[in-house]
Amino acid sequence: MERTIINRVIFAVFFILLMFVPASAQTDQLPSWNDGAAKKAIIEFVKTTTEKDSPKFVLPAARIAVFDQDGTTWVEQPMYTQVIYCLERVPEVVKAKPDLKNVEPFKTVLSGNREAMAKFTMPQLEMILAATLTGMTVDEFTSEVKKWLAAAKHPRFKQLYTDLTYQPMLEVMKLFRANGYKTYFVTGGGQDFVRMYSEQVYGIPPEQVVGSAGATHFGYDKSGKPILTKVAKLLLNDDTAGKPEGIYLMIGRRPVAAFGNSIGDRQMLEYTQAGDGARLMMLVHHDDEKREYAYGPNSKVGTFTDTLMAEAKKKSWTVISMKDDWKKIFAFEK
Amino acid sequence: MERTIINRVIFAVFFILLMFVPASAQTDQLPSWNDGAAKKAIIEFVKTTTEKDSPKFVLPAARIAVFDQDGTTWVEQPMYTQVIYCLERVPEVVKAKPDLKNVEPFKTVLSGNREAMAKFTMPQLEMILAATLTGMTVDEFTSEVKKWLAAAKHPRFKQLYTDLTYQPMLEVMKLFRANGYKTYFVTGGGQDFVRMYSEQVYGIPPEQVVGSAGATHFGYDKSGKPILTKVAKLLLNDDTAGKPEGIYLMIGRRPVAAFGNSIGDRQMLEYTQAGDGARLMMLVHHDDEKREYAYGPNSKVGTFTDTLMAEAKKKSWTVISMKDDWKKIFAFEK
Repeated sequence: MERTIINRVIFAVFFILLMFVPASAQTDQLPSWNDGAAKKAIIEFVKTTTEKDSPKFVLPAARIAVFDQDGTTWVEQPMYTQVIYCLERVPEVVKAKPDLKNVEPFKTVLSGNREAMAKFTMPQLEMILAATLTGMTVDEFTSEVKKWLAAAKHPRFKQLYTDLTYQPMLEVMKLFRANGYKTYFVTGGGQDFVRMYSEQVYGIPPEQVVGSAGATHFGYDKSGKPILTKVAKLLLNDDTAGKPEGIYLMIGRRPVAAFGNSIGDRQMLEYTQAGDGARLMMLVHHDDEKREYAYGPNSKVGTFTDTLMAEAKKKSWTVISMKDDWKKIFAFEK
Repeated sequence: MERTIINRVIFAVFFILLMFVPASAQTDQLPSWNDGAAKKAIIEFVKTTTEKDSPKFVLPAARIAVFDQDGTTWVEQPMYTQVIYCLERVPEVVKAKPDLKNVEPFKTVLSGNREAMAKFTMPQLEMILAATLTGMTVDEFTSEVKKWLAAAKHPRFKQLYTDLTYQPMLEVMKLFRANGYKTYFVTGGGQDFVRMYSEQVYGIPPEQVVGSAGATHFGYDKSGKPILTKVAKLLLNDDTAGKPEGIYLMIGRRPVAAFGNSIGDRQMLEYTQAGDGARLMMLVHHDDEKREYAYGPNSKVGTFTDTLMAEAKKKSWTVISMKDDWKKIFAFEK
């Protein structure tokens, strides 16, 4: 009993001391960002929407910030990470179903001819996605993806895909969360794929990942244990108009801040902006060939058209230049 | 400056005093519950899964508790609340589309013949749902539902539907949340309908409501403003097997506790139980004709079959007797 009281007194004294420590010098909230309009817009937005006497104050419950993933928070070139996963799963699938060996598009994937793969039609790509993303239980899928993520490396950077996240965007997510915002992914990528690493890599828990989603089927295994099996039926195509539709389905509130990088994010930004009060809409522009990639209207992956750039200007969306706004892109950079 | 220091000192002294206040006598965490196996099971479960040195400790991030809504947390007899909403919307729909006046099933609804309405076939009911729940923007739908909820009253209890919540279950939700659990609805009811009142009435925010969901369509109004329109395409039928499927889609984690009241909740309880570690599965049994309703195998609404009762016994699910376990059912009771 006496010890408890002593502990309490020590704690109280410590608490009092803490209160008299002068506020430390203002630390840079976004250290990987160069000073400029983009950095300023983010810091200003967070400040004005969370200070109680601000005319732009946003209630804590309404603080929803949504982020596209591929190309907005990690590398999406030369191919979306999940598509690479699917291609690299093909040998395993063929091992289980040897008949596929001589059937297109599997034959081309096994040949390793990347140029031919880049020319796959949409139905061919869908065959690969169906063969590698469906037919297994969700537990089997989880274990396959985790194994792959722990080993597979990006062809150019020779790093794990989960290390190819943009340090400046991790800082933005952290800043938002530190100010009472809930951060969500709203990604065209597979919802259950992204959920495998979103918490560990980005601090976004599985229930805050909105993505393209296939159906599952509830059933029982031979021992009578309930299982969920992934089936080849698309429930939600979380791209373009599917993004605001997915936000309504999964979150049920309109975001106040939205980050994207391509024409697939346009409707999400429009939907975000259409609400009342303070709004922040931003687009990451890939203009840094040296440190990452430079691409725009002509890229099949992460297309950023001139029309999108014109809309961004007209509607006061902030375009982030990776080259000019980001001091550092990856955490592993020296 | 001096005032700030004085304030801090006052606050610190207050804080110290607080620490020396003896722990108040243990208050009843579930005051509307009679002492019994059900109450004990809930309190024990929350305690053993949240005490740090407990062998059944559950990490905060994994603390997910799911609740069915109709019949588990509010009255579902003589008809689901949302079905009543749809029936009571029919006159407005017919006003806008007078051709429907002489078309079944709308003609019967307008006649007010409840017995005839109770005999509607599934396709007829679907026509009514489609006519009253789709075709409008989500904002229009929100405003219609809110207006109705503020005025419509239950035929027997003469209370607002949102006042027909079960006080004992509100206490359970509160107890779970006070111990770091996230409480979710997993309801066969319409997701966006339940989201209108879930936060205010149950303390469950919209993003934690998993329910049956129709698709929306993103588009623009005449002025170019982005709008979402509700369309007649079912994305998720959140009943029976659809409940674990919906949990996987919307939450992406397996719950550790699940509450239901009918055969529609069976798969959700099975799925919850199939995980590792501590689990809590409970079924509300409507056996109180006097204070609420008594129904079981023969009810179309909230069917509780003998097979379900047998499964509950075999698998150690706790059955809550409204008659015996609940001291009080509604907050408005004297």
